[in-house]
Amino acid sequence: MSHNTFGHLFRVTTWGESHGPALGCVVDGCPPGIRFKLAEIQAELDRRRPGTSRFVTQRREPDEVKILSGVLPEGEDGTLVTTGTPISMLIDNVDQRSKDYGEIARQYRPGHADFAYDRKYGIRDHRGGGRSSARETAARVAAGALARKVVPGLVVRGALVAMGTMEIDRDAWDWDFVDDAQNPFFTPDRQSVARFATYLDGIRKAGSSVGAVIEIVAEGVPVGLGAPIYAKLDQDIAGNLMSINAVKGVEIGEGFNAARLTGEQNADEMRMGNDGKPIFLSNHAGGILGGISTGQPVVARFAVKPTSSILTPRQSIDRDGRNVDVMTKGRHDPCVGIRAVPIGEAMVACAIADHFLRDRGQTGGR
Amino acid sequence: MSHNTFGHLFRVTTWGESHGPALGCVVDGCPPGIRFKLAEIQAELDRRRPGTSRFVTQRREPDEVKILSGVLPEGEDGTLVTTGTPISMLIDNVDQRSKDYGEIARQYRPGHADFAYDRKYGIRDHRGGGRSSARETAARVAAGALARKVVPGLVVRGALVAMGTMEIDRDAWDWDFVDDAQNPFFTPDRQSVARFATYLDGIRKAGSSVGAVIEIVAEGVPVGLGAPIYAKLDQDIAGNLMSINAVKGVEIGEGFNAARLTGEQNADEMRMGNDGKPIFLSNHAGGILGGISTGQPVVARFAVKPTSSILTPRQSIDRDGRNVDVMTKGRHDPCVGIRAVPIGEAMVACAIADHFLRDRGQTGGR
Amino acid sequence: MSHNTFGHLFRVTTWGESHGPALGCVVDGCPPGIRFKLAEIQAELDRRRPGTSRFVTQRREPDEVKILSGVLPEGEDGTLVTTGTPISMLIDNVDQRSKDYGEIARQYRPGHADFAYDRKYGIRDHRGGGRSSARETAARVAAGALARKVVPGLVVRGALVAMGTMEIDRDAWDWDFVDDAQNPFFTPDRQSVARFATYLDGIRKAGSSVGAVIEIVAEGVPVGLGAPIYAKLDQDIAGNLMSINAVKGVEIGEGFNAARLTGEQNADEMRMGNDGKPIFLSNHAGGILGGISTGQPVVARFAVKPTSSILTPRQSIDRDGRNVDVMTKGRHDPCVGIRAVPIGEAMVACAIADHFLRDRGQTGGR
Amino acid sequence: MSHNTFGHLFRVTTWGESHGPALGCVVDGCPPGIRFKLAEIQAELDRRRPGTSRFVTQRREPDEVKILSGVLPEGEDGTLVTTGTPISMLIDNVDQRSKDYGEIARQYRPGHADFAYDRKYGIRDHRGGGRSSARETAARVAAGALARKVVPGLVVRGALVAMGTMEIDRDAWDWDFVDDAQNPFFTPDRQSVARFATYLDGIRKAGSSVGAVIEIVAEGVPVGLGAPIYAKLDQDIAGNLMSINAVKGVEIGEGFNAARLTGEQNADEMRMGNDGKPIFLSNHAGGILGGISTGQPVVARFAVKPTSSILTPRQSIDRDGRNVDVMTKGRHDPCVGIRAVPIGEAMVACAIADHFLRDRGQTGGR
Repeated sequence: MSHNTFGHLFRVTTWGESHGPALGCVVDGCPPGIRFKLAEIQAELDRRRPGTSRFVTQRREPDEVKILSGVLPEGEDGTLVTTGTPISMLIDNVDQRSKDYGEIARQYRPGHADFAYDRKYGIRDHRGGGRSSARETAARVAAGALARKVVPGLVVRGALVAMGTMEIDRDAWDWDFVDDAQNPFFTPDRQSVARFATYLDGIRKAGSSVGAVIEIVAEGVPVGLGAPIYAKLDQDIAGNLMSINAVKGVEIGEGFNAARLTGEQNADEMRMGNDGKPIFLSNHAGGILGGISTGQPVVARFAVKPTSSILTPRQSIDRDGRNVDVMTKGRHDPCVGIRAVPIGEAMVACAIADHFLRDRGQTGGR
Repeated sequence: MSHNTFGHLFRVTTWGESHGPALGCVVDGCPPGIRFKLAEIQAELDRRRPGTSRFVTQRREPDEVKILSGVLPEGEDGTLVTTGTPISMLIDNVDQRSKDYGEIARQYRPGHADFAYDRKYGIRDHRGGGRSSARETAARVAAGALARKVVPGLVVRGALVAMGTMEIDRDAWDWDFVDDAQNPFFTPDRQSVARFATYLDGIRKAGSSVGAVIEIVAEGVPVGLGAPIYAKLDQDIAGNLMSINAVKGVEIGEGFNAARLTGEQNADEMRMGNDGKPIFLSNHAGGILGGISTGQPVVARFAVKPTSSILTPRQSIDRDGRNVDVMTKGRHDPCVGIRAVPIGEAMVACAIADHFLRDRGQTGGR
Repeated sequence: MSHNTFGHLFRVTTWGESHGPALGCVVDGCPPGIRFKLAEIQAELDRRRPGTSRFVTQRREPDEVKILSGVLPEGEDGTLVTTGTPISMLIDNVDQRSKDYGEIARQYRPGHADFAYDRKYGIRDHRGGGRSSARETAARVAAGALARKVVPGLVVRGALVAMGTMEIDRDAWDWDFVDDAQNPFFTPDRQSVARFATYLDGIRKAGSSVGAVIEIVAEGVPVGLGAPIYAKLDQDIAGNLMSINAVKGVEIGEGFNAARLTGEQNADEMRMGNDGKPIFLSNHAGGILGGISTGQPVVARFAVKPTSSILTPRQSIDRDGRNVDVMTKGRHDPCVGIRAVPIGEAMVACAIADHFLRDRGQTGGR
Repeated sequence: MSHNTFGHLFRVTTWGESHGPALGCVVDGCPPGIRFKLAEIQAELDRRRPGTSRFVTQRREPDEVKILSGVLPEGEDGTLVTTGTPISMLIDNVDQRSKDYGEIARQYRPGHADFAYDRKYGIRDHRGGGRSSARETAARVAAGALARKVVPGLVVRGALVAMGTMEIDRDAWDWDFVDDAQNPFFTPDRQSVARFATYLDGIRKAGSSVGAVIEIVAEGVPVGLGAPIYAKLDQDIAGNLMSINAVKGVEIGEGFNAARLTGEQNADEMRMGNDGKPIFLSNHAGGILGGISTGQPVVARFAVKPTSSILTPRQSIDRDGRNVDVMTKGRHDPCVGIRAVPIGEAMVACAIADHFLRDRGQTGGR
């Protein structure tokens, strides 16, 4: 019910504004006895961190995470173990150049929530988007780093598969390259880096921006997570992904392409394997059938719209009902979809962790 | 949290299996004092009802809805008024030909939840899909018919915009034609009927099936519904739509196409109208920015996969781990996407009604 | 969030008014594979049923429960097995003498919700109390009968321990006598029957009513249910019991008497038993410490106020703002506390079942 | 569902352990536009603060609250205004003498959650009770200070009405005295201070402890908050109060005494006042009838057990299954009931604020 919480048994509440002193989250319901190191959480945050290349916002935020509760140290190597109590994580805001935003404090930026937000709440922290800022997603990434630990054997990875009108070559997919230091785009296709760089430099220099499509693949998802009706695993993944800033579409497996297939084409046939275990001969379903995980990799994609903050002037109005031309200076990502990769992974990981606990609750996790 | 409930303040719990004695729902949180007639609920159910043309399942279900609680009669014309207490609605299952399903009781039908379901619960009512049957959606449509009444001025309409590889001509869009008696497809394009009929007859006669894309448009949505983070209106619409059987993708506004646009193209510019009210010059956003409704029409699309129950044999396994070839007889829709139109409308209406009450709770509905 | 639902993983939604066609509940989240017979549910309802003695309301309701979903028959002996899908139960209202209530349709009966209810909802089904009627508790008892099956080894029993100014002799406690056919009061003290009968006959003939105190004891509660803060087992038991009509107080273990004890007196000391298992030497805590079950019997008590519907006239006002004298005819329990015994058991059983599943979700049920 | 959250629309999530770096809460759902000063929050915390007299724990904690999100400054006088986004509040732990607890790290203290907690989670921060520590209640008090602002005209006050075997003289009730600097007990009876002081000094010097009864009175509660079934206002107040550490019983209005009354005695009669408004002639109901507020003051009482940490040795066992004698040194309140007064106020205020928003959501707050 809450407006700033997601999940049910693995439950994440986030708080914080772009230009407040800090932001953070409380992860409630994390099972006790899970071991991890702070560096593992930090590593995920570093993947989302701004300022790492010319293709993302130049805001300089170390995004250093502190854990304030819910864990105990174990041994001397920095291992932390969860106690089953709520885990509070905090990230200080460091580089808040509020002056950048003074000019548009009363203007409604096209593509942003400004107008609707003002009408709803009657008050708005305009600095950096306030609560609507993508900075909030740092808290999600921290929570997702924990979620990954909840389900034994779970591996959640993501990649950018399209930027604007350009797509990757799926035959060149290389997971190892996604987090390569030479890869500012989280693309799994090594050859695409040069193409994307040229394309995005053009976009950036034109004071424009562009959208992207991200694909998340979760391997090691146990069979049986989800439910046939309103706790479908795909439903919660879709809701989680759609809650990320600027996302306008979500797909599972074949997604919209499934509408174009026949029943024979779309059926994932099965055979018993030599090891006596069932084998799926394809994965059009994206690992979820009837709302329940099949044991195959869970595949989700989401579309990120182009950054709304652009240098090109756009017509709009201001809070006083005057026509204005809005040009958003400040520091912005020319393609917010890039940094959405670790965020999407985190949201999928959280959905899976939540359903893992829910399944264990209802069925005992058979 | 519950596995069979959706919504928070306008809260719908459904129950029932395809071949049990009945199915139904409890709508909790409906405001008191809302007036309607039973015939209005029934009319929505009739739109979803099977057996209305050769293009949908031939199961004969009157889908007659009874209201067991939560309303009082007012006057002599059949008007009912809600009392604010839970509204229990019940629909008897009449035409349950269980014998049709005997053959595949132990087989896992490709594309269905059978395998994952069995692994999760260890027990399964295989008849007609049991709880996974699309018959459950009758309860959603009944709830949605109430939801439409909760928000003054709200109009939620839907249409089929693509079937398999064929699309409508959007320039020929005519809302009035969607519910025309000569229109078995909920298409808004009069010319498309003959094309779709020929196409789907071919599919049907081949023992095959095909997917579809549905578009839902909600007009009269007040500005300010939703929230910037985890109660985004688009997030809950996406979750609601993804919870419909066979849905594999959801879009808001430009959806996946937004990824291909630049910031200038995607910006919905604004101007003050002559009446002193703000005007949007386009609606790429689909009526939702930053998770909050803008007052423009809310536009959502969803992709329905092809019916998994087909006459063409597919390879699979059975409960005992044997390889089998599955051919699903029985009565099935060659394109389940058709009847998904009123279901999609219902789910969007429920999401909007819920957010209308939630907004009134937090902000007083300014 | 919902106004007619309780529980989180074992989740009960009830619906229905006193004088509508039926009432019922949906139990969502019940694990699959639980076996029971309809007669077991019915037996619990029969304990709560009106009309069984001169000491309870003379309304004649068979309270026959039907199960509409969520179970499959197993074998030939009437055994039902839960499937993990929502279990819908329905009880028809049979004996609705609406004419009894015509006189007070517009009057606000002292001690009843009438005034506050009207101010809140603006519309009210006055017949038999409408939604506020204790008839709704039949649905709780049905749900509780299922809840008892969820936790292996759980036994939940209740007894009336005080009626008005009279108390039982706790030294004469005999659980076997509570459901004895010669015991119209659910008292565990055989000698108290004659005393209570004489006392309550006097109350009844005087057109008056009287309150009662009920004690519920749950044995077989596993150690470790609950949580240290806002999912305390005692918190949820207290909320569940306080939600029963006419309840004004709830205690766990020593309850209010604990305030009068010293730390030494109240401490439940422990020793290792000869079998190597921990033994508590007393149970002042009522089986719950710091919100978590200790493995000892869980002991809760609740106070039921005297029936507000009495024949003795009381001053009040009506809906039109006129002073009136209210005298409630109709059929009423002179001591509603009596029939509260099976209701209290049901509510405690539901709380324990819910926490059993929640604990299994978070900790794996170590 | 969450284990560390309470409330639905006014939703409080707390986190933190007794001996961690900090504790805090996130208040989600607070309406926008509420004005307050940090000093008002701090003032409530100061009332709960340890170390203020010899009758409470000598732990020295400034309990200085910081607000990290959800507010904007307004003007120059320190006024803060809520923005409708989550309000994160943080209180540093300063005086953590962990060495005090070393001795009983592996012992199960009678009356504490230690044994049950260990069995549930398998890991426990024993220092100061960890998550089970009453320090967590500082976060509740901070949240409650905000809750008081949500409902216009709401005044929530509390008082200690009994300590061990001693009671106040209710005829001497003086609200103004409760927060008097000369009153270390929150008693409303000036004469009781000397009696309580002598009594508690004796208890303290004997290494013992004693319980207490607290009464909370909420004035200015609008008529119509709550609901007839599972969102009863008294139900949520009872749950909220029972969630406070060491509480073993909760009453509304007459409470357990209602069981001893007749229907005539317990009826709150009504008359139309000279101003045309309804008047209740008594308040046995404690301001709540049928789960809904009547507009009269809401009156709740709760019983606090004696502090379990006492110097007198008690028999117990340790984590290794050995019999031990436990004597709890460290710094403890001889009567934890005293500091429970502001906590009880906070929990009642939170329940009322939540129901205020819920009522506004469902009914529009007629």
